[in-house]
Amino acid sequence: MRCDRLNVPRRRIVARARPRTPFPAARQGRDMNAKLYVCTTCRAGEPVVEGQPVPGTRLHAALTAADAPDGVTIIPTECLSACSNGCAVALAGPGRWSYVYGRLTETDAPDILSGAAAYATTADGIVPWRERPVIFRKQSLARIPPQEN
Amino acid sequence: MRCDRLNVPRRRIVARARPRTPFPAARQGRDMNAKLYVCTTCRAGEPVVEGQPVPGTRLHAALTAADAPDGVTIIPTECLSACSNGCAVALAGPGRWSYVYGRLTETDAPDILSGAAAYATTADGIVPWRERPVIFRKQSLARIPPQEN
Repeated sequence: MRCDRLNVPRRRIVARARPRTPFPAARQGRDMNAKLYVCTTCRAGEPVVEGQPVPGTRLHAALTAADAPDGVTIIPTECLSACSNGCAVALAGPGRWSYVYGRLTETDAPDILSGAAAYATTADGIVPWRERPVIFRKQSLARIPPQEN
Repeated sequence: MRCDRLNVPRRRIVARARPRTPFPAARQGRDMNAKLYVCTTCRAGEPVVEGQPVPGTRLHAALTAADAPDGVTIIPTECLSACSNGCAVALAGPGRWSYVYGRLTETDAPDILSGAAAYATTADGIVPWRERPVIFRKQSLARIPPQEN
């Protein structure tokens, strides 16, 4: 059991038991602009073949093949410094915890987008544990508290 | 060779070759308020012994045993979600890349503080590679681009 799972105040869990609206953050006038950073330089331990996209570039292509979820901007990034656990993506947004996930492949694109959509609906970045995709539950590399500039 | 190392524009490397002032960010009127988050709940794979502090708590105690470096605020945090690579700390600050480091112990406290001090002097969070402590070069878990709220 991950302690991130336990790091949700009881009153929050109770509140989540009520029916959820599609975009509660938007309804409350919060900034929904979540960013999904994708490490496009990641080799994920594979040898580089000239003329062939590296795994990070392939993951980015898979994520941008369809429209991004509402409230999510997908941003290619040169290095998320998670080289030994690539491919990697990060989620961040105003007032929210940031999360980094690793050991991803292009086949994870649908789950990553689903998790990013759920993240975008939160005010603090904390998606209820059971609503997170399995890859987000099991492949977290790190999270960072909300930044207040 | 880490690609984070290469992710520094050439003009930046040239600029760094000139003598460095102690606090260039401060001299240029930038916000020096860097935050060093320390995961205090981390067990680092050790069994929990009742009445004994977990490794994360011991790391936090070691980091706060002396005064924090100029421009660095040390913040205990309940979970940085890097449980399989603990102990973990994160560095963040306005306009800066955030970094998370793992596999740390209380004996690393002096190097963590030294690295945090160097981070606080930067405008963008990118400390020149050779000026980073070895633990920061080799034990990066992830980094996240600057957040602009």
